[in-house]
Amino acid sequence: MSARVRFEVTARSGAARRGTLTVRGRSTPTPAFMPVATQGTLKGIAGGRLAPMGFHALLANTYHLALRPGEETVRALGGLHRFMDYDGILLTDSGGFQVFSLAERRLVDDAGVTFRSHLDGAPLRLTPERAMKIQHALDSDIAMVLDECPPADAPPDELRRAVERSVAWARRSLAAHRALDAASSTERACFAIVQGGRDVALRRSMADELARDAFDGFALGGIAVGEDAATIRAEAEQFAPLLPADKPRYLMGVGSPRELVAAVHAGIDLFDCVLPTRNARNGYLWSRAGIVKIRNADHAQSGAPIEEGCDCTACARHSRAYLRHLFQADEMLGPILATEHNLRFFQRLLVELRAEIESGVAADWSWLAPS
Amino acid sequence: MSARVRFEVTARSGAARRGTLTVRGRSTPTPAFMPVATQGTLKGIAGGRLAPMGFHALLANTYHLALRPGEETVRALGGLHRFMDYDGILLTDSGGFQVFSLAERRLVDDAGVTFRSHLDGAPLRLTPERAMKIQHALDSDIAMVLDECPPADAPPDELRRAVERSVAWARRSLAAHRALDAASSTERACFAIVQGGRDVALRRSMADELARDAFDGFALGGIAVGEDAATIRAEAEQFAPLLPADKPRYLMGVGSPRELVAAVHAGIDLFDCVLPTRNARNGYLWSRAGIVKIRNADHAQSGAPIEEGCDCTACARHSRAYLRHLFQADEMLGPILATEHNLRFFQRLLVELRAEIESGVAADWSWLAPS
Repeated sequence: MSARVRFEVTARSGAARRGTLTVRGRSTPTPAFMPVATQGTLKGIAGGRLAPMGFHALLANTYHLALRPGEETVRALGGLHRFMDYDGILLTDSGGFQVFSLAERRLVDDAGVTFRSHLDGAPLRLTPERAMKIQHALDSDIAMVLDECPPADAPPDELRRAVERSVAWARRSLAAHRALDAASSTERACFAIVQGGRDVALRRSMADELARDAFDGFALGGIAVGEDAATIRAEAEQFAPLLPADKPRYLMGVGSPRELVAAVHAGIDLFDCVLPTRNARNGYLWSRAGIVKIRNADHAQSGAPIEEGCDCTACARHSRAYLRHLFQADEMLGPILATEHNLRFFQRLLVELRAEIESGVAADWSWLAPS
Repeated sequence: MSARVRFEVTARSGAARRGTLTVRGRSTPTPAFMPVATQGTLKGIAGGRLAPMGFHALLANTYHLALRPGEETVRALGGLHRFMDYDGILLTDSGGFQVFSLAERRLVDDAGVTFRSHLDGAPLRLTPERAMKIQHALDSDIAMVLDECPPADAPPDELRRAVERSVAWARRSLAAHRALDAASSTERACFAIVQGGRDVALRRSMADELARDAFDGFALGGIAVGEDAATIRAEAEQFAPLLPADKPRYLMGVGSPRELVAAVHAGIDLFDCVLPTRNARNGYLWSRAGIVKIRNADHAQSGAPIEEGCDCTACARHSRAYLRHLFQADEMLGPILATEHNLRFFQRLLVELRAEIESGVAADWSWLAPS
């Protein structure tokens, strides 16, 4: 870890850690939840509003931005921070997950992966070197290595081959990252990704292998890709301790409040997920009393806020009836206010988790309904 | 005009007037442009953001709100100001224009108009009394009388009959308004509407007739319903002087910057139009150099703001390239930022018009391209 990439753990409670991650002068308290700004925008929320809402780290998708508007356009315009008006930490994925889930006609070889754009079918190729080059062009603070993402239920042989290939790709990613950093006099972070499906021995061997290299953080990939909630929690608890203790641990694609709390308690520091924002656009609003389905007729006359005590615009200034009206009338202010609410709900959850770790006194999580 | 409904003219320049309109303790400087919050929301902008953007008066559509969520729902929730979190002046139309343009199977008689909802075909009836009752239930500050809106090119006989009926309906509207005001101890404003198509004699006789009653303001209806821009300007200039000089004059449904400036110079005080917000959602952004069609490939690499010197979020914090990317990627932040820009463009235009009237020194309007 370079001088400028710092991860300081300031408190512990059980396996949980309270800390601060700093990259290129930008800091976020941890544990942190990173909302997903797939196309360089958190849907409906201007970039400048995110830090005041408590979000000092964000994920953007390399695959989408490389296709549109193109990483060289973003670079020419001063990078993604400036493009989207966000001065927090930007973590970019490698594009690999989207190539394996969205793109068409994939062909993987040891050097990289060839595929066609889901937008216009154009033929494209992604290699570890290219993935890092795009992320640097976007002005990422935390670049993720390219990895192969086989289905979680792939046969053991396929999983093992993917792990071996992903270890090799991770090292090539780190080498490319360092060369790009040196060439541009930047000190970005590079995180490795531990795969291995549900095979704990395979996960451990991959984590141990990657721990030999000076990655700035370690992620768990291939979790929350269709399993039920209990399985996700079990995986988080089982796999978190496999990652080096002195670097930030990032659980990719998680998750719901219950999974998030369980994973923090297991020692995870970073999360990203589209759940709060996607739920919001579909009219599913989080509260400690359960999900409020705002389109329901129950709310048509309700003067109550989504959640008492929430400081978001929807709760502080509007009734459930108004939110329902906006959704029924197909008004975009509905998804906008709902997005702000769900984000603030998650942020308040994180604040409580951090306070719990600092105090060492277990918080009351009984409102997290069993699933 | 009651004690609480006040219109004070503080400066004049030619026929143009600079003033303040106050209703129920809420004030707007005039000339004022009222954006249109059809369904109780200015599309994409939370109600609490409008006053800081300079908008102290807004129009909401009675027809839409009566159908959904229903005026009694809005009343039960504390009225439209509270519902949409807006503490400026709310002007509501009577619903008549929508009945004559949107609703199905209209049948007009002397007592009112029967029609079917454009949402579900339900049979409905609107009378002057019912129009006022709905507007009061919505908590309108300025209620508009119900009028008949024949096409501008209707035969003279039909126009004259519509004018006669509209005069009668205006008086019934005012009487109903006063009774509702008395019953609820409120002092809302009631504006009359002068119709008459392009027949100046008919317009004058209707204006003179209505001027005998104590309306709080006078509107010109049936303008900007399909005519070209030059005709709209000519109508505004011809008809504005027909309205009483001591009350606010409101030109309904206007308009573009050029028409707005011409109408202010002719003595109009109030405007409403969906143009800036609808244009914005279609990617047509106003600037003094002309309309910026933000989807154009020209802007793909542009680091410039929509308009230099504009203080909106789009211009102050983002490039044209980012705005274009948002529109190309179908991201709702595109229409949101575009709406804010066009609204600020209009507000800055109004600020300049007010300063022009106060100073008596003609501003430079040469950037308004001839149409």
